[in-house]
Amino acid sequence: MKNIIAERMDKVPESFIREILKVTDAAHVISFAGGLPSPDTFPVREIAKACETVLATDGQKALQYASTEGYFPLRQYISGRYMEKHGLKIKPEDILITTGSQQALDLAGKVLINPKDKVLIEGPGYLGAIQALSVFSPVFKTVLMKDDGVDLEGFKKICSKNAIKLFYGVPNFQNPSGITYSGSVRNNLALLLEKYGVQFIEDDPYGELRFIGEALSPVKSYYKNGILLGSFSKVVAPGLRLGWITAPQNIMKSLVIAKQAADLHTNSLSQRILYRYLMDNNEDKHIQDIIKVYKYQCDVMIKAIEEYFPDSIRHTSPEGGMFLWVTLPKKLNSRDLFNNAIKQNVAFVPGAPFYANGGGENTMRLNFSNSSPDKIKEGIARLGKVIKKMLK
Amino acid sequence: MKNIIAERMDKVPESFIREILKVTDAAHVISFAGGLPSPDTFPVREIAKACETVLATDGQKALQYASTEGYFPLRQYISGRYMEKHGLKIKPEDILITTGSQQALDLAGKVLINPKDKVLIEGPGYLGAIQALSVFSPVFKTVLMKDDGVDLEGFKKICSKNAIKLFYGVPNFQNPSGITYSGSVRNNLALLLEKYGVQFIEDDPYGELRFIGEALSPVKSYYKNGILLGSFSKVVAPGLRLGWITAPQNIMKSLVIAKQAADLHTNSLSQRILYRYLMDNNEDKHIQDIIKVYKYQCDVMIKAIEEYFPDSIRHTSPEGGMFLWVTLPKKLNSRDLFNNAIKQNVAFVPGAPFYANGGGENTMRLNFSNSSPDKIKEGIARLGKVIKKMLK
Repeated sequence: MKNIIAERMDKVPESFIREILKVTDAAHVISFAGGLPSPDTFPVREIAKACETVLATDGQKALQYASTEGYFPLRQYISGRYMEKHGLKIKPEDILITTGSQQALDLAGKVLINPKDKVLIEGPGYLGAIQALSVFSPVFKTVLMKDDGVDLEGFKKICSKNAIKLFYGVPNFQNPSGITYSGSVRNNLALLLEKYGVQFIEDDPYGELRFIGEALSPVKSYYKNGILLGSFSKVVAPGLRLGWITAPQNIMKSLVIAKQAADLHTNSLSQRILYRYLMDNNEDKHIQDIIKVYKYQCDVMIKAIEEYFPDSIRHTSPEGGMFLWVTLPKKLNSRDLFNNAIKQNVAFVPGAPFYANGGGENTMRLNFSNSSPDKIKEGIARLGKVIKKMLK
Repeated sequence: MKNIIAERMDKVPESFIREILKVTDAAHVISFAGGLPSPDTFPVREIAKACETVLATDGQKALQYASTEGYFPLRQYISGRYMEKHGLKIKPEDILITTGSQQALDLAGKVLINPKDKVLIEGPGYLGAIQALSVFSPVFKTVLMKDDGVDLEGFKKICSKNAIKLFYGVPNFQNPSGITYSGSVRNNLALLLEKYGVQFIEDDPYGELRFIGEALSPVKSYYKNGILLGSFSKVVAPGLRLGWITAPQNIMKSLVIAKQAADLHTNSLSQRILYRYLMDNNEDKHIQDIIKVYKYQCDVMIKAIEEYFPDSIRHTSPEGGMFLWVTLPKKLNSRDLFNNAIKQNVAFVPGAPFYANGGGENTMRLNFSNSSPDKIKEGIARLGKVIKKMLK
């Protein structure tokens, strides 16, 4: 019974964050480690109302098996919003509703990755994607992030030396770095994707949470063959587990088969509740409320960093989303910092696990969406003290 | 872009049922093709009440990210029910909540099957399992079903000639045949699994829907290393997408990692609603209500078959569940029958796709859970006419 586990599981990393959260979940710990949206922003009462309406009017249908592709009116809504926000034409038929956008990663990996296919990912990159895609045994390559998005020179170099099958990236307020691809990076990335025949999985869970500047179009606007993921987890609530994937038809056909094999279809009660909620409320207004909270908390964190951290430390200044990224002096290892910080009851995620091919030992991710301004000030002050002590 | 789809998808069958349902979904068709529970049995009002309570008392938690393993009280409930119904000791920690039991198949396949591993499946066997497991590129072998369960002689023969890694089966009111493994078959199967070192995925979505005779213990009672799946889809409602998998610890560890990679965690709102429903209502009483309906519909179908079908046709007499199985004279192909029957606006699923290695061209599956007694009588009468005409 020893070798009963399939080989593909050998290289799947156990989520380091998951392990960390076990240590940092205690009430007395100020945690910047998790990636949770603020529960105070959840529209609990409105969801309750939507739930009541759905079950009173369409109860039997909401509780029955449903179509693999997802609830059609919800797919129409998503399609309409792409048009409204970005002038982007994506038919409802080209949208598959998934069990959170994490499942979209699983399905895309299943449908696209042969063992040993080369998959390019940002450094630092989203851990959940590294985990989901690694199940299908790719060889990861890493392209570093610059202040205005993925390093295009690096991208070109890697693609000219390697047969890269697909690139996974998060152009808006990236997890973990908070970095946003500029318009020019998007445009030029699209040209490079085309040139090298690389498929792009564009993950956009945070795009609507922009608190500074103008919204930029998805890379999908420039590169029609791309795969684009979305999620309601950060703009409504993650417990509903509702995300989506949009892809060219040849890929969509396989995605639907993979989805059916994976779980038949996404929770139909949740889909109808969400749709009812979206019909009876103003999503834009709700998102503005979330943005107000996150922008303030982000400002507080940046001010605290500038006050309490030594000047030698760099940080990103996100235009939206939930995270910022800190680069420590080279000699400081963020795992050591974590071990010292947790003794002061403050937590974060060390940066190394976000690099699929190693590196980043002096970096760390800080979440600002799920701590109150007071906690943020206090936590950053404590962290600053620990850092200064270690640098002495 | 032509070869962009990964090879593993080549052998995943598109669900034939799915294709059939497109033809048979029209209101004027009497369909025995689907596998839907009767929506009239869904506890819509009670679910609405549970929903209201959950959102009023625990709204933020129900809408937040939650643990990969599932809602602990729900896992305790399942554990308690195994003990109560079968004296079977399964710790809550050994139960992982999944997005329907279909997802349990995806996770088990992911974690256990290396490409070319030999997987044994019943003939006829559950299509959803053939589909889910085929994603991981096994070689299927088929062991035929007899009236009292899987053919143990056949099982022995196959296992002595092949290194079978795992066996998938549905011991209670099997989908598609309606057959139940006898106590002696369970016992002896456990011995053979042990002897040949075969892992068993025991799928039990219908076990509680027994309308004749005494409940039999799962094979897991005899074979502790087995994997046992369960589901709330047939006893509460499928739209909640809630199932579970229980497995030995070494396998569970990998299942949890695979689950996290697949969709982070199962819908937390659904889990809490279901748990509230189970606490505030009597599950046993509700199941008795379902059984009454299904038993009656099954009786009506069997009587109609005996009245309207030629004597040369054999059928199973299920002790529970949702399906029965019809074997036509050898010369009659059930696909041809389907084509003729649909012209009379009556539908079923031809049996061949349920055989992973071919065969069963003269068999068919009939669902009795989702048609009213009148429709059942009328539909079987029409089918009988078509069959008699074809046999002339």
